Amino acid sequence: MSEQPHVVALSGGVGGAKLVVGLAHEVEQDRLLVIANGGDDFEHLGLTICPDADTLLYAGSGLDNPKLGWGRCDETWTFMRVVGDLGGPTWFQLGDGDLALHVLRSERLRHGERLSAIMDDVRQRLGVLFRIVPMSDDPVRTWVETDAGRIPFQDWFVGRRCAPRVSGLAFVGAETARPAPGLVEALGAQELEAVVLCPSNPLISVAPILAVEGLRAAIERAGAPIVAVSPLVGGRALKGPAAKMMSELDLGSDALAIARFYAGLIDGLIIDQADANQARPIEELGIRALVAPTVMTSLDDRIELAAAALAFARTLPRRAQPRRWRKPSVVP
Amino acid sequence: MSEQPHVVALSGGVGGAKLVVGLAHEVEQDRLLVIANGGDDFEHLGLTICPDADTLLYAGSGLDNPKLGWGRCDETWTFMRVVGDLGGPTWFQLGDGDLALHVLRSERLRHGERLSAIMDDVRQRLGVLFRIVPMSDDPVRTWVETDAGRIPFQDWFVGRRCAPRVSGLAFVGAETARPAPGLVEALGAQELEAVVLCPSNPLISVAPILAVEGLRAAIERAGAPIVAVSPLVGGRALKGPAAKMMSELDLGSDALAIARFYAGLIDGLIIDQADANQARPIEELGIRALVAPTVMTSLDDRIELAAAALAFARTLPRRAQPRRWRKPSVVP
Repeated sequence: MSEQPHVVALSGGVGGAKLVVGLAHEVEQDRLLVIANGGDDFEHLGLTICPDADTLLYAGSGLDNPKLGWGRCDETWTFMRVVGDLGGPTWFQLGDGDLALHVLRSERLRHGERLSAIMDDVRQRLGVLFRIVPMSDDPVRTWVETDAGRIPFQDWFVGRRCAPRVSGLAFVGAETARPAPGLVEALGAQELEAVVLCPSNPLISVAPILAVEGLRAAIERAGAPIVAVSPLVGGRALKGPAAKMMSELDLGSDALAIARFYAGLIDGLIIDQADANQARPIEELGIRALVAPTVMTSLDDRIELAAAALAFARTLPRRAQPRRWRKPSVVP
Repeated sequence: MSEQPHVVALSGGVGGAKLVVGLAHEVEQDRLLVIANGGDDFEHLGLTICPDADTLLYAGSGLDNPKLGWGRCDETWTFMRVVGDLGGPTWFQLGDGDLALHVLRSERLRHGERLSAIMDDVRQRLGVLFRIVPMSDDPVRTWVETDAGRIPFQDWFVGRRCAPRVSGLAFVGAETARPAPGLVEALGAQELEAVVLCPSNPLISVAPILAVEGLRAAIERAGAPIVAVSPLVGGRALKGPAAKMMSELDLGSDALAIARFYAGLIDGLIIDQADANQARPIEELGIRALVAPTVMTSLDDRIELAAAALAFARTLPRRAQPRRWRKPSVVP
């Protein structure tokens, strides 16, 4: 970590990883650092599984499976089939190759290695040139309060396909979690040109990162402009339950709702052309708005959106005074 | 375990499993109980792996891989390939389907289930009608003393391909290990017609079972005749390091050496036609010898040898007094 990054991105899984791949084309790769959401991490079959960090890893190494939208491209499923034959749990699909990462990571964690050190080793072995850093080496686990009770995130997200209505969130462990080594320094570095909040779910992909007190404070203090890309287009999430969750929590479900969510924290928000009419109310919140195509289908889309985000950040003033995120009350 | 078995077999891996498959054809299957060697069990990548019990499980369910001689027939190897890509250990090959058994078993053990209960559930799920019982729910681990130091069994057997010269053995944990539930009762039952020592390596497949004090005592006390099948034919092991190990430990490496090894414990020994000239010196040890084809290539070979072993046992008198195994001094 001797060279400080020029761009720090905060990302969840698939949607965020698309922009990260674009950023990796636009920034010298060793000058890009991605903070991966760890709230989705969970223990399953005795394994520690880190879905968002792994999605970033597979996307960054070109091993991602664009057909499935998750997992590895060169995957087989024998393990899962036999787990079913043996009466084991099959609600969370684990590919045979993916499993290697979970088994090796879990073993190294049990031997006392730090998660961030393991993931840094793994991303280098897979040839990922930018840094992928879990938000914390301390476990933080998202729970969802719903009309069906308080449920661990993956049980709600995968096991119940997001069906139970959401009434609250908890990020268990966040109060005491420390930022992973190097993150506070990277966010405070003079070299930093932009902080990018990727188009990930604000509630379950970005908020858990911000729930790590030391990280949130470092992000609020960053001199570089902070730019977010709205994950909602035309009032809908391109993928995942962001719109559903935000509606159920009375936060609204459009680009303006994203602006309100991040108010006080971000300097600029990129919204889709479909939401151009929301630019003005967003700017009235003190957030600069940029209208751009945000739907990333091709690699070119990713690169163009990344370039737009970085160019946008360059137009925004650096901050001498710390920001103060006006966190919505439903966010823990 | 309300119905007591008529035949109890002691078995290691591949060689023993062949005879077990034959026995399962000759005995009503719910009246066959196989005690699986657990000395080969080990912990690897955070998983508890039980090679001999698993080999019996796969052989009994027809899932075994006759080409490889180990593992499952319907196997893929993606996990192992990625473990290699990630810099993990590849010296012990784990197939993707095989891994499901290891992951589920390890998870259930961590949750406090007994190994014997887990294996009984698994064999039923895989449709194995005879019982496969690990010798103990307490871990026993074989170590090999060699000219390259004291090595855990699998490191020596797989990792070093049995190369280091053997000077001794240790069965760590055997002193305090208790027989798995039901085994002592099965060995003491009136219904028991024969105890069969399968053609497995005496030193590392059968001796660890006998090292569990309560089991050895129950076997010595069994009223039913005890019959062994020599794993050595013409002075060689059909598979594995039995002859090499026995030579290095100055035990000899022929059928007579097998008889000497088990002297005091077994009532009869089946030796191959190639070793017919050793029948007389074997009988001079007080062990009845039967010459029969012991090389099992086809299923018919297995069934015929099993039938011969059971018929042989029927010719031997039941024991009213406990036996006393004259254990070779090199056996712990």
